[in-house]
Amino acid sequence: MSISPLQKARYAYEPKLPKILQSDIGNVAIKEGPATQSVADQEKVKALFPNTYGMKEISFVNAPSSAKACRQVVGVILSGGQAPGGHNVITGLYDALKKADGANVLLGFKGGPSGLIEDSYVEFTDEIIDRYRNTGGFDIIGSGRTKLETVEQFEVVEKVAHSHGLTAIVIIGGDDSNTNAAVLAEYFAAKKSGIQVIGCPKTIDGDLKNDVIETSFGFDTAAKTYSELIGNIERDAASARKYWHFIKVMGRSASHIALECALECQPNICLIGEEVEAKGQSLMDIVCHISDVVAARSAAGENFGVAIIPEGLIEFIPEIKVLIGELNDLLAVHADEFGRLEDFIEQFDFVLAHLSANSAKVFAFLPEDIQKQLMMDRDPHGNVQVSRIETEKLLITMVTRMLKERKANGQFRGSFNAMGHFFGYEGRCAFPSNFDADYCYSLGYNAYLLIANGLTGYMSVITGLGKGPASWQAGGMPITCMMNIERRHGEYKPVIRKALVELEGKPFTYFSSQREKWEKETCYTFPGAIQYYGPEEVCDITTRTLALEKGE
Amino acid sequence: MSISPLQKARYAYEPKLPKILQSDIGNVAIKEGPATQSVADQEKVKALFPNTYGMKEISFVNAPSSAKACRQVVGVILSGGQAPGGHNVITGLYDALKKADGANVLLGFKGGPSGLIEDSYVEFTDEIIDRYRNTGGFDIIGSGRTKLETVEQFEVVEKVAHSHGLTAIVIIGGDDSNTNAAVLAEYFAAKKSGIQVIGCPKTIDGDLKNDVIETSFGFDTAAKTYSELIGNIERDAASARKYWHFIKVMGRSASHIALECALECQPNICLIGEEVEAKGQSLMDIVCHISDVVAARSAAGENFGVAIIPEGLIEFIPEIKVLIGELNDLLAVHADEFGRLEDFIEQFDFVLAHLSANSAKVFAFLPEDIQKQLMMDRDPHGNVQVSRIETEKLLITMVTRMLKERKANGQFRGSFNAMGHFFGYEGRCAFPSNFDADYCYSLGYNAYLLIANGLTGYMSVITGLGKGPASWQAGGMPITCMMNIERRHGEYKPVIRKALVELEGKPFTYFSSQREKWEKETCYTFPGAIQYYGPEEVCDITTRTLALEKGE
Repeated sequence: MSISPLQKARYAYEPKLPKILQSDIGNVAIKEGPATQSVADQEKVKALFPNTYGMKEISFVNAPSSAKACRQVVGVILSGGQAPGGHNVITGLYDALKKADGANVLLGFKGGPSGLIEDSYVEFTDEIIDRYRNTGGFDIIGSGRTKLETVEQFEVVEKVAHSHGLTAIVIIGGDDSNTNAAVLAEYFAAKKSGIQVIGCPKTIDGDLKNDVIETSFGFDTAAKTYSELIGNIERDAASARKYWHFIKVMGRSASHIALECALECQPNICLIGEEVEAKGQSLMDIVCHISDVVAARSAAGENFGVAIIPEGLIEFIPEIKVLIGELNDLLAVHADEFGRLEDFIEQFDFVLAHLSANSAKVFAFLPEDIQKQLMMDRDPHGNVQVSRIETEKLLITMVTRMLKERKANGQFRGSFNAMGHFFGYEGRCAFPSNFDADYCYSLGYNAYLLIANGLTGYMSVITGLGKGPASWQAGGMPITCMMNIERRHGEYKPVIRKALVELEGKPFTYFSSQREKWEKETCYTFPGAIQYYGPEEVCDITTRTLALEKGE
Repeated sequence: MSISPLQKARYAYEPKLPKILQSDIGNVAIKEGPATQSVADQEKVKALFPNTYGMKEISFVNAPSSAKACRQVVGVILSGGQAPGGHNVITGLYDALKKADGANVLLGFKGGPSGLIEDSYVEFTDEIIDRYRNTGGFDIIGSGRTKLETVEQFEVVEKVAHSHGLTAIVIIGGDDSNTNAAVLAEYFAAKKSGIQVIGCPKTIDGDLKNDVIETSFGFDTAAKTYSELIGNIERDAASARKYWHFIKVMGRSASHIALECALECQPNICLIGEEVEAKGQSLMDIVCHISDVVAARSAAGENFGVAIIPEGLIEFIPEIKVLIGELNDLLAVHADEFGRLEDFIEQFDFVLAHLSANSAKVFAFLPEDIQKQLMMDRDPHGNVQVSRIETEKLLITMVTRMLKERKANGQFRGSFNAMGHFFGYEGRCAFPSNFDADYCYSLGYNAYLLIANGLTGYMSVITGLGKGPASWQAGGMPITCMMNIERRHGEYKPVIRKALVELEGKPFTYFSSQREKWEKETCYTFPGAIQYYGPEEVCDITTRTLALEKGE
C-alpha cells in the first residue's frame, strides 16, 4: 500500500475558490482601497520601510484586468512549524500560474528559508503537484526555521533569485516569517531589483490574526484534531468515572487553540494564559482553583474531569515568568560553568545560588521533574523550550499535593487520580479540513494575482470566512500595516503584532459565561474526527472561534 | 451547544444488518451445527461445565422460527474497558426486543457487573436509546471492572434477576468477562433458574479472537484512531526531518493494535511483543536493533523516524518479565515494610537487596524513572500497571545512551532527537467506525435471537466480516468451546484462551516481509481521520489485519 484510501480520495477534491476568483484570470482586476498605516509606531515603521510603507489596501473585482502580460518565475518557501494546508497554498499558486500562462514557472525552495540561500530547489510539475493536493504536511519541499533577516542573507537571496530569473517570492509562514517577508520586500524595492515578495498567513497557533486576517491557516484543522481527541477522552472520563485528564495543547504562546478546544468540547476546566497574566494569578492560585473544582465535583459524586492547559500557560504565570527570565539569563551567562556540573544536585544548588530570593523560593517549590525541564537546553534564541515543560504533570503533582493536605485536614473526602496528555504533533500535519483546503488554495491562487498586478510587501488576504467560500472576498494588505515596534532579544524591531486571546472578545466572553456551569455539571460535547464528506453542517463548518468572532 | 454536529448526524445513521437478520423476526430460524469441544483440556472443562459443555454451534437461516413466544425481560451490562460500539450493541439488542414484542423490556445495569449485584439499573426507553445511537463511550450505563466469579455473587445476581423477572442477561465484555458469563450460565443452568446468559465479544486489544470470532468490536475504531495520529506524526517527522517519534499504543498484552497500526502507517519500526518473546530478545537486543536502524537512516541523511511500541512489550522481554514477576511477589509479601520506606533511595536499596542477582542487575541498569514506575502501586490483582510504565521513554533513554557511546567510538555521526507519545484513552471512546457501528448493532440484534431461541452460555457471533454486512452470517457459539485450563493468580481455571499475534499468521508475515524496506526507506502512509461518510472504499473499509486474515 503506497497511499491510503483517504489520500487517494482527497486527490479528487476540488477546493472551492471565492466566486470572484472563479472568473477568467483576465477578468479579475485590482481595486484600490485607502492607504494604510501601521497599527502603532507609525513614524518609526515608516522610516524603516520608506519604499513599502503606506501602500493601499487592495481587493479584487470582476472587471478586465490591467495586469501587464509577463512571464512569471515564482519561488515559494514554507517557513517554520507545519500547519495543515501548506500544500494547498502551493497547489493554488501553481494552478493560477499555469492557468494564466503555461510558460509560467514555480520553483519550490527546500527546507525553509535556508533553501533560498543554499539554492536548493525543485521545479514543480503537474506530476509533483498532483501528489500533494489536499494533503497534510510540508513534505513537498520541507520547512525550516532559519530566519531571513540580515543584509548578507538578502544579498545571497537576490543573487539566487536573479540566477533563476525570479519575478517573485512567496513566503508561507507565521508572524516572524511575514515580518521578514516585509523586510525583504523593502530591500528589493529599495534596490529596484524587480523581485516582488508576497506573504501567506500560516500558523496553527492562531496568533497571526488582525483586522484583515480573520484566521491563519492550519488553526482550523489542528484545533479540530485536538478537539476530536479531547472529546474522546471526555467520553472515556464520563464512562469510567474515575480519572481526571489534564490535557496540554500546543500553541506556543497565545491560548487560542486551548480556547477553541474548550468551545468545541466543553471541558470542566480550561486555563487561558492571557487571563492568568491579566489577573496576575500565581501558580498557587491556579492549583487552588483546580483543587476547588475537583473537590466540588467529587462532593457531587463525580470523581472525574477534564482540564485543558495551553502550552504557553507557564510563561503567563507572573512568578514563573520572572523565574524563566532569570534562568534564561543565568544559563546564557554561565553556560560553560553550568555545563561542567556533574549531576542534578549540583545543578540545582548552582541555580538556587544564582537566582533572586523570590525566584529561588519558586524554583525550590516546584517538583523535581519540572526543575530539570527548566534547566534543559535552551532553544537557538536562548529561551526555555516551553513545549518540553510538562505543565500538565506540574499541575497534577501540585493539585495532588494540595488535595492530600486537604484530606489530612478533613476538607476533602473524594479521590483524585489524574493522567496527563500532550497534543501537538498529532495535529500539525493532518489532512486539511475542507475549510483549510479551500482557504489555503484560495490564498495561493490569490497570491498569484497579487504578483500579476505588480504588488510587493503584501500579504495574501481572503476575508468573509464566517460564511461559505462562494462569498469570500479576495485581496491584499501591505504587511507593514500590521506592524509595530517591539523589543525582541534586546533590540527594538518592527514586527507584526502577535494576536493574543482578547479577554473582551466574543470567544472568551462566551467561554467565561459558560465555564462555571461546565465546571460543576458534565456538559461534554464530542466533536469526533474531522469529516471531509457528508452533511455540509458537519464537513464544512469552521471553528467556533471564527463563528463567534464573525457574529454567527 | 449540547451535542456536536457529527453526533447529530450520526443519530440518523442506520446500521447495516446481515441480510439474514433483515427479515421479519418470525422468519429467522435456528440451524444446528455440530456439537463443540473446548480448544484444549476437554475433559477438565467438561467436568466444570456439566450443563453447558458440548452444545452445538448454531447459525440463523431464513425459515419460520420455532422460538416460543414469550415476553422477554433482559438485563445488559458493559464490563471492563471502553470500546467504540458498546452503545450500538445495546441499541441493536433493544431494537430487536421491541421489534419482536413491544412489551419486551431491556434493563441496563449500571457501572459494570457491580450494577447486577447492587441492583442499580435503568429501564431503557426510546428516548434514552435514541440519544446513544452510533455514539462512542460506555456512558449510557457506565462500565466497571468488578469480576463476577464467586458463588456468593451469583446468588445475589440470581436474586436481583428474579426480582425483575429477568429471562436473560447479556454481558458485553472481553475474554475474562465472557469466561465469567459462561460460569454464570452454568450456575443458572445447574439451578434450572430459567435465566439465560449471552456474551458479546468486546475489546479494543483484539485478543478475543478465534476460529469463530473474527474480531472483537472496538478494535477497528481504536486502531484507526491511533493510526490517524501516527500517520499525522509520520508526516510531521518527514516534513521537519529532525525528530524520531517513539509511539506507545494501548493493547494490554497482545500486540494486535501495534501491528494493525504498522500495517496502516508503514513506520520505520514496529516492535511486536510476541516476536520478542519467541526469539528471546533482551532489552539490549531491542535497543541495539533500534540504534542500528537510527544509524543507518542517519547515514542516508534521514535523521528522523517513527517507531511503534506495544504497551505490553515490557512483559514480553524475558529478563524484564522475570524482574516484574519478582517485584510483584516481593511487593506483595513485603507490602507493609515497603510502604514504610521514606524515599526512592531507601526503596531502591530495599528492592535491590531482595531481588535475585540477575534481576537486581537488570533493575539497577534501568533509568530511574522506570525504576520508580516499576515500584508503583500494583493493580487489584497485585500486577504492575503496564500502561503506566513509560516504555517509550525507556527506549528513548537507552537508545540515546547507546548512540552516545557509539558516537564517542566514532561509530555514529548523526543526530538523534526523540519524542515519546502514548495513545490509549484517545481511541477507546471514539464514534464507532461504520464497521464497528454495523458489527455491534448486529451483535446486539443477534443476541436477542439467541435469547428468543432459548440458548444460554453462548457468545453472539457474526462472521464473514471480510466482506460487507449484507453477506455477513449470524449465529452463536458455546463459550465453553473457546476455553482451556490456565494457571491464573496461582489457581488452575477454565478461561477463554487469549489470542496473541501469531507469528505464522498473515498479518505478521506480511509485516515482516516489508519491514526491512520500511526501516531504510521512508514509506509512510497516512490513513487520516476515520470517515463516516464519502466513498465506500474510504468509509466502509475494515482493518488491514482482518483483510489479510480473510485473504483479501
